[in-house]
Amino acid sequence: MRSLLLVTTAALMVGAAPAKKLLTPSDVVAGAPAGAWKAIAAEDLMVVDLANGGRVVIQLAPEFAPVHVANIRALARNGYWNGATVYRVQDNYVAQWGLNESDKPWPAGVTAKPPAEYTRSLKGLRITPLGSADPYAPGAGFADGWPVAYSAKAGWADLVHCYGSVGVGRDLSPDTGTGGELYAVIGHGPRQLDRNIAVVGRVIDGIDRFSTLPRGTEALGFYKDKAQYVPIASIRLASDMPAGQQPSYEAMDTGSATFAQYLKLRANRHDDFYIRPAGGVDLCNVQVPVRKKA
Amino acid sequence: MRSLLLVTTAALMVGAAPAKKLLTPSDVVAGAPAGAWKAIAAEDLMVVDLANGGRVVIQLAPEFAPVHVANIRALARNGYWNGATVYRVQDNYVAQWGLNESDKPWPAGVTAKPPAEYTRSLKGLRITPLGSADPYAPGAGFADGWPVAYSAKAGWADLVHCYGSVGVGRDLSPDTGTGGELYAVIGHGPRQLDRNIAVVGRVIDGIDRFSTLPRGTEALGFYKDKAQYVPIASIRLASDMPAGQQPSYEAMDTGSATFAQYLKLRANRHDDFYIRPAGGVDLCNVQVPVRKKA
Repeated sequence: MRSLLLVTTAALMVGAAPAKKLLTPSDVVAGAPAGAWKAIAAEDLMVVDLANGGRVVIQLAPEFAPVHVANIRALARNGYWNGATVYRVQDNYVAQWGLNESDKPWPAGVTAKPPAEYTRSLKGLRITPLGSADPYAPGAGFADGWPVAYSAKAGWADLVHCYGSVGVGRDLSPDTGTGGELYAVIGHGPRQLDRNIAVVGRVIDGIDRFSTLPRGTEALGFYKDKAQYVPIASIRLASDMPAGQQPSYEAMDTGSATFAQYLKLRANRHDDFYIRPAGGVDLCNVQVPVRKKA
Repeated sequence: MRSLLLVTTAALMVGAAPAKKLLTPSDVVAGAPAGAWKAIAAEDLMVVDLANGGRVVIQLAPEFAPVHVANIRALARNGYWNGATVYRVQDNYVAQWGLNESDKPWPAGVTAKPPAEYTRSLKGLRITPLGSADPYAPGAGFADGWPVAYSAKAGWADLVHCYGSVGVGRDLSPDTGTGGELYAVIGHGPRQLDRNIAVVGRVIDGIDRFSTLPRGTEALGFYKDKAQYVPIASIRLASDMPAGQQPSYEAMDTGSATFAQYLKLRANRHDDFYIRPAGGVDLCNVQVPVRKKA
C-alpha cells in the first residue's frame, strides 16, 4: 500500500481518525458560505469548443484590457474564428489558437490597433495583498477575483501570467496584438511576460484540453504540419448561447474573509501531510477558487 | 501574418535587420563555451522507457538525497519496476509512476525507511544566488547545477519543486517514502512541497511524455480504471545500458560566467520582444540549460 498523496483531504484520509482535524485550503473552499462567491457574467465567459468534443471555458477580464476584450467579443460574435485551430503548443509555456497568419479582414467592432493594455491604474481596485515577496513587482495580491502585481508608489496594476492565464498574441513591440490570436499558459507561470503583453483572462474550466495536446516540434512549439492543427468547432460568448445551454460559473470573492483564510492556509500548510509550512507563497500557487453552477 | 512570437530568436527574426542585436538567454546558451558545460554521470541518469515508445530521462541528485537515490538505483538494477505504470496524472501538478499499492518486497540494497532527506547542509555547496526575492525561503539560487532554496543563517539548503522536478511519493508524515513511487512536476512549481518531501532529481529530456498524458478523473488525478494506466517498458540507469546505447547529457555549470550572464538575462529581458524587463525572476523560471550529447 505505497502510494503518494501529496495532497490529502478529509475524504481521503483512511485508517485511524487524526487527533485533531487541521483545515486544508480545499476544506475552506468546500465550506465557503454562499456570500463568498460571485457569479461571473455570461458575457465574460468565452466558450471554446474543440471539434473533438472537448470544451475550454475562459473568463474574460474587461477590467484590465477593455479594448482587447471588446475585440474578442466582436470576433466571437461575428464568426471571425470559423476555421480556427490550435496551431502551437510549446511545453511548459503556451497553447495558442486562432487563424494563424491569416489575412481575413477584421469584422465590425474590432479596433485594429488597440492601446497597450499591459497595465491599468491601481485606482478602483480592491487589493487583498499576497503577504509574500514577489520577484516581479513591488506588490502582489488579488483584485476583484484576479491575481495581480502592482506598484502602490507608481500607481499601476497588471494581470499576471499564471497557469491558465490567457493573453493576446502579438509580434515584436510596439505591436500589441488585436485578440485574433490567443494563448493560454500550460506551464510554470512565465511572469517575465507581465507588463509586456495584454492578458485578457484565464481558463476556468477544461485547461487539460490544451495542456494534454501534443507539443509542436517546430521552433516555439508550432506544429510542423497543418494536419496536426487541432480544429476548433466554435468560439462563443456564453451570453450568445441558447438560454438552456449557457454554462455558468462563480469565482470566490477575493475580498471575502473566506478567501483570506484560504490564502493564509496556502502559505501555511499545517495539515497532516506537511511538517514544515512555508510561511510564504507564490502568487501563482494561490489559484482563485472557481466553481461551476448546476 | 498575425502570429504570436512570445520568444524571439535571431533565426526567427524576419524582415529588416534590427539596428542592434540584443542577446536573448537562448543566444547565451547557444554560444556557451565548452568549459561552461559539465557532463552528467551515467549512473545519475535514469532512463524511463514507456511501452508506447516514448522516453523520459531523469537526472538524479545524490548530493541532496543520497539514501533515496541509492534506493532508486537498487530498484532499477533489480528489476523492481517490472510491470510499473504511470497511474496518476493531476493537471497542473504531477505525473506519478511505480507499482502503486503493491506489496512486492524491496530488493537487496534498499533502505526501507530512509531518513527525511528534505534538506541538507549548506556547507559544501557552491551557491550562485538568484538575486531576486523568493517567497518560500530566505535565500534562493543554484548549486552545482540545481535550483535550491537555502538559509545562510540556519545552514540548510534544499532542492526545490519546479516544472520537471522529480520527488519521492510518500504517505502522511513521518513516512518519507522509499523511492518506489516517484512523481514529476507537470505544472507550476508546487513549492509548498519543498522541505516536506524528498526531491531526488529532475526530468532533463522527454517531460512532454508525462505532461501530455490524459489527466486522471479520480481524486488527486488517479486514473479510474487500470486500463488507463500507462505501461512502462523499462526503467534503467544509463550506466547499466549497453555502451553504444547509453544516452549522454551535459548541464551548464551554474558557477560559470556563462550561467551568470544567462541568469541576468532571464531577469532582464531587453531583446526586441520586450518593452519592460522585470528586473527580477522566479527561481523556477531559470531552468538550468541541459543538452544532449551526440
